[in-house]
Amino acid sequence: MPKVIANLSISVDGFAAGPNQSLANPIGEGGMRVHEWMFATAAWARRMGAESIPEETADSEFVEHMHDNVGAFVMGRHMFAPGRGAWDMAWRGWWGEDPPYHAPVFVLTHHAREPLPMQGGTTFHFVTDGIESAMRQARAAAGSKDVLVAGGAETVRQYLAAGQIDELNLHVVPIVLGSGERLFDGLRDLRLAPKRVVASPAVTHITYAIETD
Amino acid sequence: MPKVIANLSISVDGFAAGPNQSLANPIGEGGMRVHEWMFATAAWARRMGAESIPEETADSEFVEHMHDNVGAFVMGRHMFAPGRGAWDMAWRGWWGEDPPYHAPVFVLTHHAREPLPMQGGTTFHFVTDGIESAMRQARAAAGSKDVLVAGGAETVRQYLAAGQIDELNLHVVPIVLGSGERLFDGLRDLRLAPKRVVASPAVTHITYAIETD
Repeated sequence: MPKVIANLSISVDGFAAGPNQSLANPIGEGGMRVHEWMFATAAWARRMGAESIPEETADSEFVEHMHDNVGAFVMGRHMFAPGRGAWDMAWRGWWGEDPPYHAPVFVLTHHAREPLPMQGGTTFHFVTDGIESAMRQARAAAGSKDVLVAGGAETVRQYLAAGQIDELNLHVVPIVLGSGERLFDGLRDLRLAPKRVVASPAVTHITYAIETD
Repeated sequence: MPKVIANLSISVDGFAAGPNQSLANPIGEGGMRVHEWMFATAAWARRMGAESIPEETADSEFVEHMHDNVGAFVMGRHMFAPGRGAWDMAWRGWWGEDPPYHAPVFVLTHHAREPLPMQGGTTFHFVTDGIESAMRQARAAAGSKDVLVAGGAETVRQYLAAGQIDELNLHVVPIVLGSGERLFDGLRDLRLAPKRVVASPAVTHITYAIETD
């Protein structure tokens, strides 16, 4: 039975993004610090085709396998591009010509755009009719595989509120941001059950099953 | 080298106590839910002299050993007693005649009271001249053993802000409280390093070293 998974890095005080988020800096001041652990892994370096590969760690092992059974991705617009409004057609994502997805990626947006095929099997599809539609399309594309909601925090929160996430991978980073955007704001009735924990000196990865009736 | 340790249970959205804290209910609405895991352990039941002992779990193992090298405790007034103001001398703590500490416990308060010896080696001392004084007295009483700051959240936060905690045991409980009292508010410059993680279906126990210059 395919699952819908969400992946999010948060600070120990619960922030997925820093304060003063802006169109130019959607993860806010200091917000990049909650993501640095992933960019520092060997698995990420390999996926991005880097020449220098860091040492293997528990974090790298997690990153190595986190897309193993994923057949499609959903992400918010800010995870694909800076700014808002009409598309700059020259923008092809943050990841270069071979993005680390290798599957269809459904980008939530208010502005239509033709599908954007990239190298390595990634195609970005732009969905303008809401999160339910994006999830339907992602599930159909994934077939018997899982759908991964890749972020950002607002997108994950919307799908959690809609009861559409089966499993949440929370990467708890040992930094205190003090202010910014919280994942769980407004999600009071969420029921979670810890399924698996992977610990490293850099991050605590907690996989929660989201329980629904 | 003896350490100062703090222990605190928090919800997955970061709350150590629920909303609408009052003198009668210092842990707030729903706040008891972040502590229930501990009361459900075999180790706690044994410590409280219960007749029925639940099964052994990773949580129980943690509770079993969390006082192993502790020579003295510090706690906020609300962890010892409800209300505020002058003491009701009939009040002898929440735990009955044999509290689960078996060591000197220094209670932060604005109201003087004679030391209160209990069964099993616990003596409550009431400290009216501030957190630094309470810590000095606790360290002296503990000798070569550790000092444990037992809570509540405000007390742990004060000692974290003062740079006096060496190790923080955070028990992350898979519930969303939505509002209440947060541990980390105002502690922006805290530097943490994960040292050990114990996972169970009920709680994720993360031990952080607090790094100071």
